Amino acid sequence: MSKNLDQEVAEFSTSINEDQQLYWFDIIGSLAHGKMLQKIKILNQSEAQQIQLGLVQLLQSIEKNQIDLSIYEDIHSAVEMNLKQIIGEPAEKLHTARSRNDQIVLDERLFLREKIIHLIRGINNLQKALLTLAQKYPSLVMPGYTHLQPAQPVLFAHHLLAYFFMLQRDAERLQDALTRLNQLPLGAGALAGTSIPIDRKFVADLLAFPSVQLNSMDVVADRDYILEILSALSIEFIHLSRFGEEIVLWSSPSFQFIIIDDAFTTGSSIMPQKKNPDIAELIRGKTGEIVASWISLAVTLKGLPLTYNRDLQQDKPPLFRAIRECEKTFHIAARLMNNIQPNPEKMEEALKNGFLTSTDLCEYLVGKGIPFRKAHEMVGSIVRELASHDKNLHDLNYEELEGYIDCIDREVMIVLDEKQSINRKQSEGSTSLQEVKKQIDIAQKLLDQWTDYNTRLEKEWHSKYELLLKGE
Amino acid sequence: MSKNLDQEVAEFSTSINEDQQLYWFDIIGSLAHGKMLQKIKILNQSEAQQIQLGLVQLLQSIEKNQIDLSIYEDIHSAVEMNLKQIIGEPAEKLHTARSRNDQIVLDERLFLREKIIHLIRGINNLQKALLTLAQKYPSLVMPGYTHLQPAQPVLFAHHLLAYFFMLQRDAERLQDALTRLNQLPLGAGALAGTSIPIDRKFVADLLAFPSVQLNSMDVVADRDYILEILSALSIEFIHLSRFGEEIVLWSSPSFQFIIIDDAFTTGSSIMPQKKNPDIAELIRGKTGEIVASWISLAVTLKGLPLTYNRDLQQDKPPLFRAIRECEKTFHIAARLMNNIQPNPEKMEEALKNGFLTSTDLCEYLVGKGIPFRKAHEMVGSIVRELASHDKNLHDLNYEELEGYIDCIDREVMIVLDEKQSINRKQSEGSTSLQEVKKQIDIAQKLLDQWTDYNTRLEKEWHSKYELLLKGE
Amino acid sequence: MSKNLDQEVAEFSTSINEDQQLYWFDIIGSLAHGKMLQKIKILNQSEAQQIQLGLVQLLQSIEKNQIDLSIYEDIHSAVEMNLKQIIGEPAEKLHTARSRNDQIVLDERLFLREKIIHLIRGINNLQKALLTLAQKYPSLVMPGYTHLQPAQPVLFAHHLLAYFFMLQRDAERLQDALTRLNQLPLGAGALAGTSIPIDRKFVADLLAFPSVQLNSMDVVADRDYILEILSALSIEFIHLSRFGEEIVLWSSPSFQFIIIDDAFTTGSSIMPQKKNPDIAELIRGKTGEIVASWISLAVTLKGLPLTYNRDLQQDKPPLFRAIRECEKTFHIAARLMNNIQPNPEKMEEALKNGFLTSTDLCEYLVGKGIPFRKAHEMVGSIVRELASHDKNLHDLNYEELEGYIDCIDREVMIVLDEKQSINRKQSEGSTSLQEVKKQIDIAQKLLDQWTDYNTRLEKEWHSKYELLLKGE
Amino acid sequence: MSKNLDQEVAEFSTSINEDQQLYWFDIIGSLAHGKMLQKIKILNQSEAQQIQLGLVQLLQSIEKNQIDLSIYEDIHSAVEMNLKQIIGEPAEKLHTARSRNDQIVLDERLFLREKIIHLIRGINNLQKALLTLAQKYPSLVMPGYTHLQPAQPVLFAHHLLAYFFMLQRDAERLQDALTRLNQLPLGAGALAGTSIPIDRKFVADLLAFPSVQLNSMDVVADRDYILEILSALSIEFIHLSRFGEEIVLWSSPSFQFIIIDDAFTTGSSIMPQKKNPDIAELIRGKTGEIVASWISLAVTLKGLPLTYNRDLQQDKPPLFRAIRECEKTFHIAARLMNNIQPNPEKMEEALKNGFLTSTDLCEYLVGKGIPFRKAHEMVGSIVRELASHDKNLHDLNYEELEGYIDCIDREVMIVLDEKQSINRKQSEGSTSLQEVKKQIDIAQKLLDQWTDYNTRLEKEWHSKYELLLKGE
Repeated sequence: MSKNLDQEVAEFSTSINEDQQLYWFDIIGSLAHGKMLQKIKILNQSEAQQIQLGLVQLLQSIEKNQIDLSIYEDIHSAVEMNLKQIIGEPAEKLHTARSRNDQIVLDERLFLREKIIHLIRGINNLQKALLTLAQKYPSLVMPGYTHLQPAQPVLFAHHLLAYFFMLQRDAERLQDALTRLNQLPLGAGALAGTSIPIDRKFVADLLAFPSVQLNSMDVVADRDYILEILSALSIEFIHLSRFGEEIVLWSSPSFQFIIIDDAFTTGSSIMPQKKNPDIAELIRGKTGEIVASWISLAVTLKGLPLTYNRDLQQDKPPLFRAIRECEKTFHIAARLMNNIQPNPEKMEEALKNGFLTSTDLCEYLVGKGIPFRKAHEMVGSIVRELASHDKNLHDLNYEELEGYIDCIDREVMIVLDEKQSINRKQSEGSTSLQEVKKQIDIAQKLLDQWTDYNTRLEKEWHSKYELLLKGE
Repeated sequence: MSKNLDQEVAEFSTSINEDQQLYWFDIIGSLAHGKMLQKIKILNQSEAQQIQLGLVQLLQSIEKNQIDLSIYEDIHSAVEMNLKQIIGEPAEKLHTARSRNDQIVLDERLFLREKIIHLIRGINNLQKALLTLAQKYPSLVMPGYTHLQPAQPVLFAHHLLAYFFMLQRDAERLQDALTRLNQLPLGAGALAGTSIPIDRKFVADLLAFPSVQLNSMDVVADRDYILEILSALSIEFIHLSRFGEEIVLWSSPSFQFIIIDDAFTTGSSIMPQKKNPDIAELIRGKTGEIVASWISLAVTLKGLPLTYNRDLQQDKPPLFRAIRECEKTFHIAARLMNNIQPNPEKMEEALKNGFLTSTDLCEYLVGKGIPFRKAHEMVGSIVRELASHDKNLHDLNYEELEGYIDCIDREVMIVLDEKQSINRKQSEGSTSLQEVKKQIDIAQKLLDQWTDYNTRLEKEWHSKYELLLKGE
Repeated sequence: MSKNLDQEVAEFSTSINEDQQLYWFDIIGSLAHGKMLQKIKILNQSEAQQIQLGLVQLLQSIEKNQIDLSIYEDIHSAVEMNLKQIIGEPAEKLHTARSRNDQIVLDERLFLREKIIHLIRGINNLQKALLTLAQKYPSLVMPGYTHLQPAQPVLFAHHLLAYFFMLQRDAERLQDALTRLNQLPLGAGALAGTSIPIDRKFVADLLAFPSVQLNSMDVVADRDYILEILSALSIEFIHLSRFGEEIVLWSSPSFQFIIIDDAFTTGSSIMPQKKNPDIAELIRGKTGEIVASWISLAVTLKGLPLTYNRDLQQDKPPLFRAIRECEKTFHIAARLMNNIQPNPEKMEEALKNGFLTSTDLCEYLVGKGIPFRKAHEMVGSIVRELASHDKNLHDLNYEELEGYIDCIDREVMIVLDEKQSINRKQSEGSTSLQEVKKQIDIAQKLLDQWTDYNTRLEKEWHSKYELLLKGE
Repeated sequence: MSKNLDQEVAEFSTSINEDQQLYWFDIIGSLAHGKMLQKIKILNQSEAQQIQLGLVQLLQSIEKNQIDLSIYEDIHSAVEMNLKQIIGEPAEKLHTARSRNDQIVLDERLFLREKIIHLIRGINNLQKALLTLAQKYPSLVMPGYTHLQPAQPVLFAHHLLAYFFMLQRDAERLQDALTRLNQLPLGAGALAGTSIPIDRKFVADLLAFPSVQLNSMDVVADRDYILEILSALSIEFIHLSRFGEEIVLWSSPSFQFIIIDDAFTTGSSIMPQKKNPDIAELIRGKTGEIVASWISLAVTLKGLPLTYNRDLQQDKPPLFRAIRECEKTFHIAARLMNNIQPNPEKMEEALKNGFLTSTDLCEYLVGKGIPFRKAHEMVGSIVRELASHDKNLHDLNYEELEGYIDCIDREVMIVLDEKQSINRKQSEGSTSLQEVKKQIDIAQKLLDQWTDYNTRLEKEWHSKYELLLKGE
């Protein structure tokens, strides 16, 4: 370029505000790249060592806030220029056989696989909070709802575990994304690879990547690994929005199924009596930001020709935002769960108020040989008649009930009892005490597996990084 | 509340990082509210004066960065608590007959009507840049495209003006949004109004609102005025994404229709020959963020019961982000236009390369009495034959052309000339020199009208604010 | 083209499934275009008359389902080819000086301005249903909510009117869109205008367009008029999703604020006791489709260079889908409102259950000279103490209250009464009987204005169409 | 219900238009459910046989179009009511121990796992078309682009394979979704499970589900398996939009890198010379619909409390639409690839026009011991000087080049040759002939693996279905 970049243009096009968050990974990637350059003799031992020591020194300076990264165009130039200040000329050799185009993908992938483990851990903590609450109240019965109408009695624990298993799939989706992105991009160069005889497998090994990406243009052009993470997080947040909605409902005076600890609610600037479930509302409300982060990148990528285009720089704002919000939210949601307690009295009251054992009665009649559709009609007509007199099923004594249906026996009184009926459920995955106990055991095992998985991967990566930092 | 708010909960739920941007408007609104409270005798003259002076002093301190707003829960408490520090007890009367629920809507509306004028001005500047370029090259001819295939010759100026008129509608949409939101919300209280005999019309007048909002629950529950702005900005950015795409295409070596000044392009860290249209790419790429800001708020609002819910706090991140990106982008886009120049030679080359006057020939034949569909077939078959011999329409001399069609006269040679054919266009809004001249005149008038509009409104508001700040 | 289009390609690229809905407007537009071609002597009188009669005959055949439109590539070819079958050669002249590129925009704009009036009417009907219900229960008091916590008593009518005014803005946004799109596009040709001396103002007059579009490239390239409608409808549906949510809440046994007529609820295939608010749920649920229609077109348009690209054909599926869903939903939502009745008893019960007059008590104390913040604290501490004994404000008699606060008088008992407190509200737009009455009057006037507006425009357009159909 | 459903309400709330597409799976699911009911003695042998035969007869009638499904509320009632017509009373027992809430999830999951295999096959076909084209032109060189500026020479095959590997990940994401959704939901009942001693593992085995879902409330409340598919398809379409964009660019006269067969392009109604890449534009344009289908369901699900809500019915329109569009598009995109041919002459021309071997020269100099940053500067200054004289690197002979740089040898002439430089690339995944050959081999293996996978699963499922249909 014959002219300097216009100042406002520089400000408009800088990515440093976002990508300085990647400094750690940019340096780790550079350590591995330098080591490989030494192996293939682009760097001699002395140069390689200077680069290694210089990068570690730089890393320490950044961590001590001794360097203002914000004045550079991007994190790559920031690292390279500071390295040059520290070690001089050898720094000029470090960018051999790589480009910012493959370097940024490396930084992002290193960053993201680490973040995915953090996010999975965040989800696991929330799962654990749900599980703990379920374990604390194993036999508490509440109304289960469809259409926000009370439908059948369910265990509070069963309801909580429904979220546990949603979150389980959310974590699995992140795990799948991690498996897919955990490949070395470096070596793609600007887009075509390089004529310098680099050793990508060696770099992959230094950075604990199980494999290298197969096509250099694909490496620098695509950002689907980010889209995949953002869609996994969006689905997770759709789940959380439903969880938030239920906390809001349950803590409303119309339900009063739970009490949120005062430290987790707020008052009003004008209404002294208010106790608002703000955290649950904010969890629900932040769904917009996460879904939007996905859309943001999807719109940005739409219709771009291969390979790198500057538009791709816009991958970072929605990505970093989504991760930040998710980390905060998963954490506070888990703590919220640790700070609510159910209100059995109000749950019981609500159980009494909606013919919740009608289906149980139908199924009881099926057991007596009546076809389901017929049983459904019979019970339906009893329910309608009772309702018109403002009565409920449990208001009937055995004799009255016999007046309606003649094939019953005394066991029917248990069937009609909202709290006892739970345990007549027999199907796998149902809301009986015994089936919920099985779920709790499985849930515990799943959490243990996550702990193993998370620890194993982090340990593998961090021990590799350790070697690079030590120059071994 | 019997307990203090948990520290992490406080951090999670604070809005101060976003809403501290509203400090100016929060104080202006408070000045007006205080003045009204004096009018209805809730404040005596001394209290009112202390509040007025205290608020102005606080404003000055904030502008001098003497106050750390970030430690408060939100901007309203920040203002109230600091005012109390300055003037003591009278500050406790200021929150009479208002709630944070209506106060935040007031702050947002004051902020937004100001921002809308800024945004319209930003659009106007880009319109002006387009117009200036069009005026500078009034007769430059280039290929007009459909399906990215050269279709017919058009004036470069005509093409630029197409964007001018898109932007015109974008600005109009913002204007409509402003008209709709320019109503006083204050006085809605938490949701139900107040039993204190406040005078909302008086406050509206102090703040230059033409009217007051009619229903207090609507005031505190809705955020459609933000959705409307975000959708207007999204449509604007869809336009800009197309503009960005064209700048990228035109500056590509395959087109070379324009040359971007070096100060507005960047090089490559690995390919020394590169000259990349980064600004245009970033403009195109940022479309994702703006569209996403709309989705973010739409998802957040979906399904919320009336009235205020804490989810509404999430209106600010996407809003502030979208405004910030738009302001920067409109500005740099205008500057980009001031730093490109067309490359007539390459445009002319491209004109020669695509039978661009086929339609003109058809229309010429229509003028000779041949039905359009027939003319279309005739010209189509000549084109196909020429193409199969790698020839073009302008490769034919008059006699050769007569061999194909017998009803022609010498004028046809002008019809076939890509640069002269332009001026045979007669229809209103077409690409003839004369019609484009008319558009330029209209465009100029529209810009003048905007200047009047923007200035008039700002002057009206600012003179009102002046009075409040002076305590008059 | 030397080859025929591949059959599967033809099927993939056809738009006839969607655009056959435009047949009426395609023919009306052709009638006006033909009349203008006669005026400028492209058509002689006989040709013009044949075309006019042929088009009207074709229209009748289509309306009688005598023509299978689905076999054509698009509606324009369908009309032209059928016209040729009816009148022969003169049909070949009709496409003179126009292109499918400007023709489709004409068809869409004619279609849309008509549809906008239908949609506004649909909104008006829902407004009317809300207003009628408000008028039927002018003094019914219910809890108003923030954070789904009871906050202050409000009139049921006041709550309904909050939606009335949201819908009012929704209709206004559609009106703004109509004003902006109500311009003649025809005459833009493929993109550059035409050398045939057409008279666009004449066509505009024939079709009741107040003006012509100013730039031919803008005409054929942009679809912002559709984006604008889709975003207005999305905002409207965000409002409806909140309305749907409230109907679901209010009809839930936990609230029971309303009873939905049995004809508007459904049962369960397995639970005989259920009465589900399906319509409200579907209204809420369809929000996804409308918001998505906006995103669909925004993504499609993003990054397209000027002018026409085949991608633009994808404007129709989301547009037609959104309109269809909106028409159905506005209608059923209005009918739903006509089929619910409030349950005053349950509302009153809920009123008693949440210290709803705390703010009134604060304001009462302000009237006694106590600074608001102090009053807020005093009332807050009474509320907390009462709550800890499971008591409520109305459980206190005058003497007990005096024990807490000494500056009160007997009027305080009215202040504390949830139903009477309403009428102490004095502010404009508040929930007092008198202020709500004012809103009702304004609402009625607004509906009358809409009726005038809708009727006037339709009459204007239809009388013009009448002339074209009659050949006058 | 004491009243019949209002007719318009019935029409508004019906799902039959969508879910009749599930008839096959509803019947298969019912066959398995019936067989299990027999096993647990709810049905005796005769009833079970009647149901089995009746369902098979019904299936045949539907396939012969002898039954109008559209008059029913949903597919479940349609099947049950028709079965009753065929076999009478035993039909009333079939709905025992199941609900429409778990039944619809079963139908969807059966449908989706089949569709996923279809979709993967569609992607595989497109991969195969790309691979075939790559194999056909293994050594054709073209410019590789960044920022739509020519950057470095790449093999045409390499560029095509970049898409191959994107599509590979897209197919893998669908595979992950399949693995996750391939669990039996049936047995969840309305939400709580059932007191009838059903055998879910037995049903799972009959329908070839590897496992059963663990929590009944999770079963009926969630739709994340659909969100996951829609996001996978959205990412796939983002890839296709880029592919479409490139086809449009390459077939534009400004590039002319490819020639699309006439059978795959269209002409203009007004411009006889046009040859438009409509299919590629429509592929690009349809991205909006697919991304929107994801948003549609995400918005619908946001904030819904557990468990089933009628909103969930809205999962079907976006899902079915997305699948339909994807199936059509994958197919036509593959056929498009089979109908394009590259234009080597134009590619070569473009290669000559952009200093494309600058990076190769840099790397060559690195090989001579010059630090990369220095080499970059040296080459940069040569390029700038040449450009200012409108010359190119290949315009220099060896001696002239030596004038600029003294450390070179004769091999440099190969380095500068755009076509030969390709083969100096040595890195894994680079664009050398040899590395691309490796990619081709891997690609072929991946396709073979897909064939195995797809066939194996379908065979497993279909053999199970066969048994159910035969009543074995």
